[in-house]
Amino acid sequence: MTLSMYQASVPVFVHMLGTLSAILDKGAAFVEARAIEPSVLVNARLAPDMRPLSAQVQLATDMAIRGAARLAGIEFPSNPDTESTFPELQERVNKALRFLEPLSPDQIDGSEDRAITLQMRDGELHFKGQDYLLNFLLPNLYFHVTAAYLILRHNGVELGKRDFLG
Amino acid sequence: MTLSMYQASVPVFVHMLGTLSAILDKGAAFVEARAIEPSVLVNARLAPDMRPLSAQVQLATDMAIRGAARLAGIEFPSNPDTESTFPELQERVNKALRFLEPLSPDQIDGSEDRAITLQMRDGELHFKGQDYLLNFLLPNLYFHVTAAYLILRHNGVELGKRDFLG
Repeated sequence: MTLSMYQASVPVFVHMLGTLSAILDKGAAFVEARAIEPSVLVNARLAPDMRPLSAQVQLATDMAIRGAARLAGIEFPSNPDTESTFPELQERVNKALRFLEPLSPDQIDGSEDRAITLQMRDGELHFKGQDYLLNFLLPNLYFHVTAAYLILRHNGVELGKRDFLG
Repeated sequence: MTLSMYQASVPVFVHMLGTLSAILDKGAAFVEARAIEPSVLVNARLAPDMRPLSAQVQLATDMAIRGAARLAGIEFPSNPDTESTFPELQERVNKALRFLEPLSPDQIDGSEDRAITLQMRDGELHFKGQDYLLNFLLPNLYFHVTAAYLILRHNGVELGKRDFLG
């Protein structure tokens, strides 16, 4: 077996989105058990100028969908950021999983040198596929899933490292 | 170019530890500018039963050193967790970089199927090298670097996503 672009991307994304889904379940159970208005957690932030839980989920799913699509050189769906409840956030994760799971190794393997251009607010970022995966996609995906985990953890949801590793 | 176990590990670890070092610099500058006792930030946590900033740095560096060593099948140094200041945490990161940087691709490439056993509190975890890298090392390393970033961010240190991506 040799490490491939597919193996280092799609199954990892699927695994981490499964983790995110399980973390969100624990958040939803937490507010229900304590009769807390769910939007308190959905809108919770770790700093006033950081994005809330809902945006962490939106960004994590966008990163996985767009990342896999760019590596495969295929179109990706646009997902407006409208989720404001736990069930809606779960559906967003499920939608991302439904996009990722049918992707096959032959769509992504060999994308190490594929030219990828990202349009940022202040200009373009140019990557080759491997650099994009290792130094942009994976760090961003892990960042947003960890941020979601830590927002919930900070607010008292009982989560442990195993919930993160899945 | 084909993705390899070395490329997906050592340079990524070095990059993320560089990020961690830059984040710690901003934390040190923050307490100095505001005449805050540095230990307040070094011991800061996001939840009472979560580990503080110092431990996030210790765990991130351990993960990188031990992970690379296990993939290469070489011994790794034991680092007692004694750091309690920003300069000591920086030296811990530097020590990890000095361990990682001399590692060569031929020490790590081909480790996809290497059997790796971790002794956990409640038993052993068995991995093959590729699974260990993708589903244990990288998530753990990103978790602890993100936790360090978010502990500082939560306490008012001015950090943005670019400080995380490096």
